[in-house]
Amino acid sequence: MKKVINNAEQVVEEMLQGVVAAHPQYVKRVAGFDVLVRANSPVQGKVALVSGGGSGHEPSHGGYVGRGMLDGAVAGAVFTSPTPDQVYEAVKAVDGGKGVLLVIKNYTGDIMNFEMAAEMADADGIKVAKVVVNDDVAVENSTWTTGRRGIAGTVFVHKIAGAKAETGADLAEVQKTAEKVIANVRSMGMALSPCTVPAAGKPSFTLAENEVEIGMGIHGEPGTHREVIRTADETAEHLLNKIFADIALGAGDEVAVMVNGLGGTPLMELYVVNRKVAAMLAEKNIKIAKTYVGNYMTSLEMSGFSVTVLKLDSELKELLFAPADTPALVQF
Amino acid sequence: MKKVINNAEQVVEEMLQGVVAAHPQYVKRVAGFDVLVRANSPVQGKVALVSGGGSGHEPSHGGYVGRGMLDGAVAGAVFTSPTPDQVYEAVKAVDGGKGVLLVIKNYTGDIMNFEMAAEMADADGIKVAKVVVNDDVAVENSTWTTGRRGIAGTVFVHKIAGAKAETGADLAEVQKTAEKVIANVRSMGMALSPCTVPAAGKPSFTLAENEVEIGMGIHGEPGTHREVIRTADETAEHLLNKIFADIALGAGDEVAVMVNGLGGTPLMELYVVNRKVAAMLAEKNIKIAKTYVGNYMTSLEMSGFSVTVLKLDSELKELLFAPADTPALVQF
Repeated sequence: MKKVINNAEQVVEEMLQGVVAAHPQYVKRVAGFDVLVRANSPVQGKVALVSGGGSGHEPSHGGYVGRGMLDGAVAGAVFTSPTPDQVYEAVKAVDGGKGVLLVIKNYTGDIMNFEMAAEMADADGIKVAKVVVNDDVAVENSTWTTGRRGIAGTVFVHKIAGAKAETGADLAEVQKTAEKVIANVRSMGMALSPCTVPAAGKPSFTLAENEVEIGMGIHGEPGTHREVIRTADETAEHLLNKIFADIALGAGDEVAVMVNGLGGTPLMELYVVNRKVAAMLAEKNIKIAKTYVGNYMTSLEMSGFSVTVLKLDSELKELLFAPADTPALVQF
Repeated sequence: MKKVINNAEQVVEEMLQGVVAAHPQYVKRVAGFDVLVRANSPVQGKVALVSGGGSGHEPSHGGYVGRGMLDGAVAGAVFTSPTPDQVYEAVKAVDGGKGVLLVIKNYTGDIMNFEMAAEMADADGIKVAKVVVNDDVAVENSTWTTGRRGIAGTVFVHKIAGAKAETGADLAEVQKTAEKVIANVRSMGMALSPCTVPAAGKPSFTLAENEVEIGMGIHGEPGTHREVIRTADETAEHLLNKIFADIALGAGDEVAVMVNGLGGTPLMELYVVNRKVAAMLAEKNIKIAKTYVGNYMTSLEMSGFSVTVLKLDSELKELLFAPADTPALVQF
């Protein structure tokens, strides 16, 4: 295992220290916990959003803590659900009196632990609601999931529900908007190579020199099949057609698009993929309101990508374009 | 070679199409050339900035075309200097009557070709000035370089000289500010693994399973030495000490910091590095005005990172914090 770390046991702790050192204007640490919250938390009179999950998906989720997106993010061990006490501390730290929405990716462990935290917070009199993101159309049920997995589409939930919360909407309204995003967002990915969880010390699976896995999950969960690598266009077409088969999209519809790198894929290749994605949407006369190309929901150094399509209505579009300011992908 | 591409010969062309498809609000293509310019080019009454070089360093440089940074970026073949006619077309497309500053990374081919383009533009009556970025303290002279190489510090030149140009400064003033950035910026990197140029089809060098190269260039040029991989802290300390040895920095000084991923390094690891970099600067009572952690100047899928430190004065700091809006690392 060749990694830029000090030791495998300290990697999440040291990452969090590095994030706070880099972005003190955005985030602070909840002392004693693997929780990042906005530097000005709690924000009074605003519904707060908390997300998180296993580490290794950076900039998800700590990178999205800031104005217009999340209020708090909980970092589990790499690819491991955060414990309920950690989530509970995040909820307590961000509640500004209007309640807290938990944005959970659909993994069995995450759901169990976030729900336990919600019960603990409820006992304290904090109003908590939850949404579960399951945007991955690749497979039903998976290694750690009942139903569909939550992957890169989660970032659209952070953005749009986060913007809704900034309008002063109440908890039920923010939850309803988040659920609308989830109903309208679909993703699918593929991997060229595995990644190595630091504590494991070796790759979690192997692929042959010319082989890729289609529909692979962000923790290396199996996808729909393995195949000999095809062209970028053929692969993008396959993924996008799976998405088209799952959500009604037609001429005149408007979407946001994300071509997401899994951590080890050159940006050059993501743009080659986006060329095909944009062309396929244009063929169907689907309008692209905004495109995101980059590393938004990663799997450590895994090579591969996912494509996400979010169908917009006027509310979702307005909230997508609302201002946000977070440490992820700090702009010049 | 396992890559998400269609064919090696078309990868730059298809990438550029993908960039324009993703970010039409920011950039447009100069028809028939591998040149991206601002969507509203030429901007009248403002000095224009043009940079570029070989492709494979994305988001450098096309990702920095936009308000407050570059006016145009020229994309050569992967790791290959763009030809003079391409640079000349960029200069012509962006000149708004106040002249054009060329920001060149210090590689012999780039300097020759940008200078030839400057002569062609000069013959047309376009005022052209140039600066050469040579921030890499690792080695003097290298495979394609006389003197020091230009690496991630170049992005600070784009930002700060770009902001200066937005103030309405004239060409000599913008050039002077760019030269001040170059005088104040130092970088050094290391690599854990090579990358594969698509047209070559195989990695440009090999490293043993436990071996890294310290001071490696962004095209895989040799660094100062190879060694068995050490901890993140030891490696960061070595790189930063090389920078400290090269530029006077002391208590009370203020800097901007960049921990730059080379393309295949998890963001988690870059933050682990930043933790040590921030601690070392704090020990010296050097104040950090802003920190950038992410992929700003990459080498395809190379694994590794560089550290850049920019010593600020009041002018540089104000310009660093001036607004900019570019496609690189599109924010939510």
